[in-house]
Amino acid sequence: MVANTILFDFSVDPSKISDDRQRSEVVKIMRSELENLFPQLKFVYDLNTSDGYLVLLTENNSTIVTIRFFTEPGLITMNIEYYLENGKEQLLSFDSSKRLENTLAKKLNINSGQVLPPLKRGAVSRYFPSSDERIIEYDIDEIVFEKRSPFQKIQIVHSKTLGNMLILDELQNIADSDLIYTETLMQRGIENYDGKEICILGGGDGALLYELLKENPKHIVMIEIDVAVMDACNKYMNSICGDVLEKRKGHNYEIIEGDCMEYMKLFQQQGRKFDYVFGDLTDIPISDTPTGEIWNFIRTILEQSFKILKPNGKFLTHGNGTSCMESLKMFQDQLDLLKPPVKYTTSKAFVPSFMEDWVFYQVEFA
Amino acid sequence: MVANTILFDFSVDPSKISDDRQRSEVVKIMRSELENLFPQLKFVYDLNTSDGYLVLLTENNSTIVTIRFFTEPGLITMNIEYYLENGKEQLLSFDSSKRLENTLAKKLNINSGQVLPPLKRGAVSRYFPSSDERIIEYDIDEIVFEKRSPFQKIQIVHSKTLGNMLILDELQNIADSDLIYTETLMQRGIENYDGKEICILGGGDGALLYELLKENPKHIVMIEIDVAVMDACNKYMNSICGDVLEKRKGHNYEIIEGDCMEYMKLFQQQGRKFDYVFGDLTDIPISDTPTGEIWNFIRTILEQSFKILKPNGKFLTHGNGTSCMESLKMFQDQLDLLKPPVKYTTSKAFVPSFMEDWVFYQVEFA
Repeated sequence: MVANTILFDFSVDPSKISDDRQRSEVVKIMRSELENLFPQLKFVYDLNTSDGYLVLLTENNSTIVTIRFFTEPGLITMNIEYYLENGKEQLLSFDSSKRLENTLAKKLNINSGQVLPPLKRGAVSRYFPSSDERIIEYDIDEIVFEKRSPFQKIQIVHSKTLGNMLILDELQNIADSDLIYTETLMQRGIENYDGKEICILGGGDGALLYELLKENPKHIVMIEIDVAVMDACNKYMNSICGDVLEKRKGHNYEIIEGDCMEYMKLFQQQGRKFDYVFGDLTDIPISDTPTGEIWNFIRTILEQSFKILKPNGKFLTHGNGTSCMESLKMFQDQLDLLKPPVKYTTSKAFVPSFMEDWVFYQVEFA
Repeated sequence: MVANTILFDFSVDPSKISDDRQRSEVVKIMRSELENLFPQLKFVYDLNTSDGYLVLLTENNSTIVTIRFFTEPGLITMNIEYYLENGKEQLLSFDSSKRLENTLAKKLNINSGQVLPPLKRGAVSRYFPSSDERIIEYDIDEIVFEKRSPFQKIQIVHSKTLGNMLILDELQNIADSDLIYTETLMQRGIENYDGKEICILGGGDGALLYELLKENPKHIVMIEIDVAVMDACNKYMNSICGDVLEKRKGHNYEIIEGDCMEYMKLFQQQGRKFDYVFGDLTDIPISDTPTGEIWNFIRTILEQSFKILKPNGKFLTHGNGTSCMESLKMFQDQLDLLKPPVKYTTSKAFVPSFMEDWVFYQVEFA
């Protein structure tokens, strides 16, 4: 049950599409090739755009072809869109698309052309961004869970190769495949949690709590604002969180539903301090937070975290993809602003469901 | 210099968009939200499609919004497309898109909605498929080389993280980052090439030849049909091929420009046999080969290869992505058809520029 959108781009010498006659000629060539695939193709609408020309064609009022000329840069885009019934053969497979692209490029006498694999549009979300907002299509075959909580859009989707994946506001958070994420965040084998007091800010997927409990800590308190995330992960991601989200409380741990900012203030009033504080919040805590405010929020979290850390304590957190140099730099700038001053080390790991190398920070008092 | 296409999908209860009045109401809600971002938005065209309804809106005849209803499955797609001048701010960033998606989903009272990161369309090809035809956007910042040879479309593009990448007919072949590909193909550290006679079928990027020559073979002959690939790699991918494509011939190697099928027949006439034959041809040798013929071609290559192998020789080749179970199975079926019979082992490696695990075959006489 998907619609297919197939996108073609052709870069041409702007002087070759600068007037109506030239553009008509190009449309004629394109139509003639398209008619080999869509014999009933007919013109339905055109529009002189401010930057060129747009023409709409259709076959049987079901396949819609949009050809758009951007005159000044010399770009022609073509979008083909149709609904593909379950079990029906593709009208235009990726191989056929490539042949069409190649033929059109030759007929139009240009080198620069591309066609994208067919984009599948329907109830199953398959496309999520890398940290630098490149699009990645996952082998998702099922939406396991979907809900919009007061805080965010929560999805658990199933990937054939990665297992269940938690997606918050279109961003991959963790998948069944991602033990390496948690292990790098907690620096397993490097840090010693035996008998330690630990605070997790966020961590709603339960994976960090679950793994830390294997290391015999004295006590862990986890503060997660979105109970809907915990309920969903408890139900659908037990391979990463075990039963910790089900129980919510054990002899050496407690999960608090609440705003970590408030609890950090409470801990300060109580004089409660930790050996480890984990920043395991989502990258962008509230989906309509403007960019500037995100960094203020992150710095505030950092400031508060260090107020509840013992003198030899450590603040451990995830950073960003290695390709996001700018974002990593901005995070480090926030660290450099902290008083008292801190020092930090970094680790990185390739996180399967992120499809990229991720940077993790280990921060302590300088 | 790119056009941006931003795709939104909403899954709705089919009964809520089954008549004109309902669809008008939805369009009204969508327009009202869109007008917050595009205040000059106006209606220009609509069409009753065979499977629903299509409406075209525009702001200033430059931003084009297409909203399409697929009534029966209950799907609404929205495409927003505009040209983004160099250095100009996005009209609709991914964050803004996500907010719009979220608002629309709430206003339309639905859970299932998604928005894709903006697709960038222009002279620089950024989108290539995984082995199972999922779309992957690479961090490509430059088209280094582009040519359509008589055999295929050849591109060398530059990725910020992977270096130069060779793309043939829209398929990633090898990148500067991919030594692991060549080392797994040749089973470095497992196979001993010292004093051995080797034949490479294809291998136009030169990487395999370059790495094998480091292992002191007696002689290597490489047969590549597309001189344009060799010229391009010689010029732009020296980190993987060194000077072997420049020299074309040395005291212990020779590159032949030609069709490997003809040369395999010639070698048989000459009674020339090899310790190792490498199948390093592109997955799909000629872009308009129908699917059935591809497997015939592959089997023929296998049959001929074993006719020029010494009794203890090995045929080494790349398979496909681990997610392509069907394709791997079909390849293994071809191996099982060979006479005399063969046996094989497999290895796999995560190839950075493929962004997935790849399977390699080591085949010998049973």
